[in-house]
Amino acid sequence: MLVVHKYGGTSVGSLDRIRSVAERVIAERRKGADIVVVVSAMSGETDRLLKLAGGLSRFPDERETDVLLSTGEQVTSALLAITLKEMGADAVSMLGSQIRIVTDSAHGNARIDEIEKEKILSVLAKGRIVVVPGFQGIDGEGNITTLGRGGSDTTAVAVAAALKADVCEIYTDVDGVYTTDPHITKKARRLDRVSYEEMLEMASLGAKVLQIRSVELARKYSVPLLVKSSFTGGKGTLVCEEVPMMEQVVVAGISYNKNEAKITVGEVPDRPGTASKIFGPLAEAGIVVDMIVQNVSHEGLADMTFTTAKADARKAYKLMEAAAPGLGAKYLAIDEDIAKISIVGSGMRSHSGIASKMFAILFEEGINLEMISTSEIKISCVVKEKYGELAVRALHTGFGLDAAEVVEER
Amino acid sequence: MLVVHKYGGTSVGSLDRIRSVAERVIAERRKGADIVVVVSAMSGETDRLLKLAGGLSRFPDERETDVLLSTGEQVTSALLAITLKEMGADAVSMLGSQIRIVTDSAHGNARIDEIEKEKILSVLAKGRIVVVPGFQGIDGEGNITTLGRGGSDTTAVAVAAALKADVCEIYTDVDGVYTTDPHITKKARRLDRVSYEEMLEMASLGAKVLQIRSVELARKYSVPLLVKSSFTGGKGTLVCEEVPMMEQVVVAGISYNKNEAKITVGEVPDRPGTASKIFGPLAEAGIVVDMIVQNVSHEGLADMTFTTAKADARKAYKLMEAAAPGLGAKYLAIDEDIAKISIVGSGMRSHSGIASKMFAILFEEGINLEMISTSEIKISCVVKEKYGELAVRALHTGFGLDAAEVVEER
Repeated sequence: MLVVHKYGGTSVGSLDRIRSVAERVIAERRKGADIVVVVSAMSGETDRLLKLAGGLSRFPDERETDVLLSTGEQVTSALLAITLKEMGADAVSMLGSQIRIVTDSAHGNARIDEIEKEKILSVLAKGRIVVVPGFQGIDGEGNITTLGRGGSDTTAVAVAAALKADVCEIYTDVDGVYTTDPHITKKARRLDRVSYEEMLEMASLGAKVLQIRSVELARKYSVPLLVKSSFTGGKGTLVCEEVPMMEQVVVAGISYNKNEAKITVGEVPDRPGTASKIFGPLAEAGIVVDMIVQNVSHEGLADMTFTTAKADARKAYKLMEAAAPGLGAKYLAIDEDIAKISIVGSGMRSHSGIASKMFAILFEEGINLEMISTSEIKISCVVKEKYGELAVRALHTGFGLDAAEVVEER
Repeated sequence: MLVVHKYGGTSVGSLDRIRSVAERVIAERRKGADIVVVVSAMSGETDRLLKLAGGLSRFPDERETDVLLSTGEQVTSALLAITLKEMGADAVSMLGSQIRIVTDSAHGNARIDEIEKEKILSVLAKGRIVVVPGFQGIDGEGNITTLGRGGSDTTAVAVAAALKADVCEIYTDVDGVYTTDPHITKKARRLDRVSYEEMLEMASLGAKVLQIRSVELARKYSVPLLVKSSFTGGKGTLVCEEVPMMEQVVVAGISYNKNEAKITVGEVPDRPGTASKIFGPLAEAGIVVDMIVQNVSHEGLADMTFTTAKADARKAYKLMEAAAPGLGAKYLAIDEDIAKISIVGSGMRSHSGIASKMFAILFEEGINLEMISTSEIKISCVVKEKYGELAVRALHTGFGLDAAEVVEER
C-alpha cells in the first residue's frame, strides 16, 4: 500500500496544524502504508513573498520569482519533517531538485515532464516517510520552476502517478466536493464519488476544490483522488473513473459563476474571418474568453456574444470598439450583471431531455436565459445576476440533488 | 577584475536597503568588474525560522533545520536578483546546489570541501552578475547543509578563493576594524590595514566583525578582504598579508571581553594526569575553555585557573566540585566579575618589551592583574571587571593608538 497525502496552505497554516498533520500521517503509517506527503506553503506565505518582490519590481523577473516562491513550500516541508521526527517517525524532506521533479522552463506555470522515481522509492523502501514541497520543480538546466497557483495538487498527483500510488488523498479546508456551493443552498450535498470528467467541468466552473491540471493528470494516469477535510474528518469525495453505478445519477452537480461579463458584437455581416477578427485581438491581449455564442439571422447578419472574466471586460470592450468598424458591426453591448449556471453530469451522455428539463425548471421560476452553451456532459446558461442563486436552488431541487436532511453546520 | 561582494543581514534588512545594495553593485559593474554578490538572510529572518522549528521540537532535526534555514538566504538572493534586473542589469541567482558548493555532512556547521567554479565562471563570462545565497551548501549526497552562524562570510571568501577574485569586499554595519571598541573609548581609530593573524586574534577576542573561519580561509588562500560599511561609505579596513610597512605598528588593536568567568582549582598535588582530570569532564560537557594558567608552588602544589564563557561557568564549577576529591584539591574558587584585555599586533614578533610595557601601563593605573597569558602576537590579561574599560583606555593611549581627532558620530 502506497499513499500520497497532500495538505494545502490552511492545513499547515500554524504550528498546531502542522502537528495535526504529523499525527494523521503517523496514524496512516502505523497502518502499514508507505507515505509521501506533499505540502503547500503555510497560508499567507506565498502572498507575503510576492509582496516583497512586488515592492522591488512591478514585473519581477520570472526565474527569480520562482527561486523566491519555492522557499514557501520548502519551509513547510522542513517543519513537517522536523515534527514527524520529533514524534518518533523516520521522515525526510526531498525538494523538487533532490527528487528531480523535472519540468519545462515556463517559469511560474511550468509543466512536469518527468519525476525520477528511483530515489524516492529507495527512501520509501527504508521505511521512511518522504515529505515533498509541492509547487516546485527544476528544468533541464537545473533552474527552479514553479507550477502555478494551486500547483501543489499537481505535484501530489504527479508523484502518485509516477510511484503508482494506490490513492492520492488531498486534504483541504472543505470536506469534499458538493453538488453545488453550500453558501447558495443548505440543501447542497457532499458527493461520495464523482468522475474525473465531471470534476473537470465542475472545477473549471467555479468549484475551486482542486487545481484543474491536477484532475487532468489524475485522469490521464488513473490516479484515484480522495478529497477530504484536514479539520473535520469525514469520508470525503472520491474522484475516479466513471463506473456504471455512477451513471444512474444524471446530474452530479451545479456550478455557479458570477465573475464573468458578457459582450455582444451586434449585427455583423456574416463573412468568413469575422470570428478571427473578434477573437484575435482578445487573444493577443491575453484575455481568456469563456463562452462563445453566435447566431446568424435571416438577413445574413450575425450577433456574436462572448463572456470573459469581469476584470478583463472593459479592456475587451475597448478592443471591440476598435475592431467594430472593420467588422461592419452595427452595435456593441456589455453586460456585467450576469451569472453563469452549469449543470454537470456524465449521465447526460446517455440521457436525453436534460437540457429541456433545465430550461423548463428555469422557465417556471420566470428566469430568462441570455446565453446557452452545451458540451458533452455540461449545459451552461447565462442569466441576470440577480436570478443566479434562485436558478441554482431551483435546479438543485429539480434534478433531485437536495440532501435528505439539511445540515446546518458543515 | 573580479570582485566578490558580501552583504550581511542588516545591509539587506529591508526593500530599501536591497535597492541600495543593487545600486552599489551596478556602480561597481559599470567600472567593468565581474561581480559575484553573496547575501545573508534579511535581518531577523533566521531567528524567525528557528523560532518556528523551536515551536515544533526542542532539538529540531539537524538535516531538516538546514533545509529550513537555507530558505532565508535564498529569499534574499532572489529579491536582489529581481532588483538588479529591474534596474536593467543582467543578474542571476545561483544556489549552493546549483553552483555546487560541496560541503561535508556536518549539518548546522558544515565545512566547504569544494566549489565547482566552472558554472559560475561561464555565467560571469556572459557578463552577468551572479547572486549567491551565503551560508548554504550541499553534501556529497545532495543534502542541503549550512555553515553555521555568520557562514555567509565564509561563503564569500570561499567563492573568492575558488574564482581567484582580486578582492572580497565584506559590507556590514560597521565601517571597518577598529583599534578597540569605540563604545569604550571615542579615541578608537579605524585601521586601514590589518594582517590576517591580527584579525584572527581580534575576532576571537570579541571584535565581531568577521566570522573567524572566513578569516582563516582568506589567509589560507591569500584572499584580500575589505571590510566596509554598506551605509556610510568610507574606505574600510583591508585584511591582508603582513607587509613590511605594517610592522612599524607594534600593537594593532586592543580587544576586550567581559563575558568570561574564572575558576580556580587550588592547591592540587602536582601529579601527571591532573590537567586531563580537570579538562576532560569540561570537554565532555561541551564547555569551551579559553585561557588556562597553571603555577606550581615550591610545595609541589599547583593552582590551576581557567576561564570559560559566563554562561557555562556555574556548570563548570559543579563539574570541578565533583572532580576535586579525586584531584586532592584543597579549594575551589569562581569569579564572574572579570574582564579580559588583549593587545594584538604582528609587530610583537620582532619587538621585545611589549609585555612589560603593558604591565607598567596597567600598574600606573593601579590595576591588579589576575591572569596573564601570551601568544606570539597577543598578550592577554584578566583584571577585575570594574577596571576593564579603564585598562582598555589606558593601553589605547599608552600604545599610541589614539585617533588624532575624536570623532563624535560614527
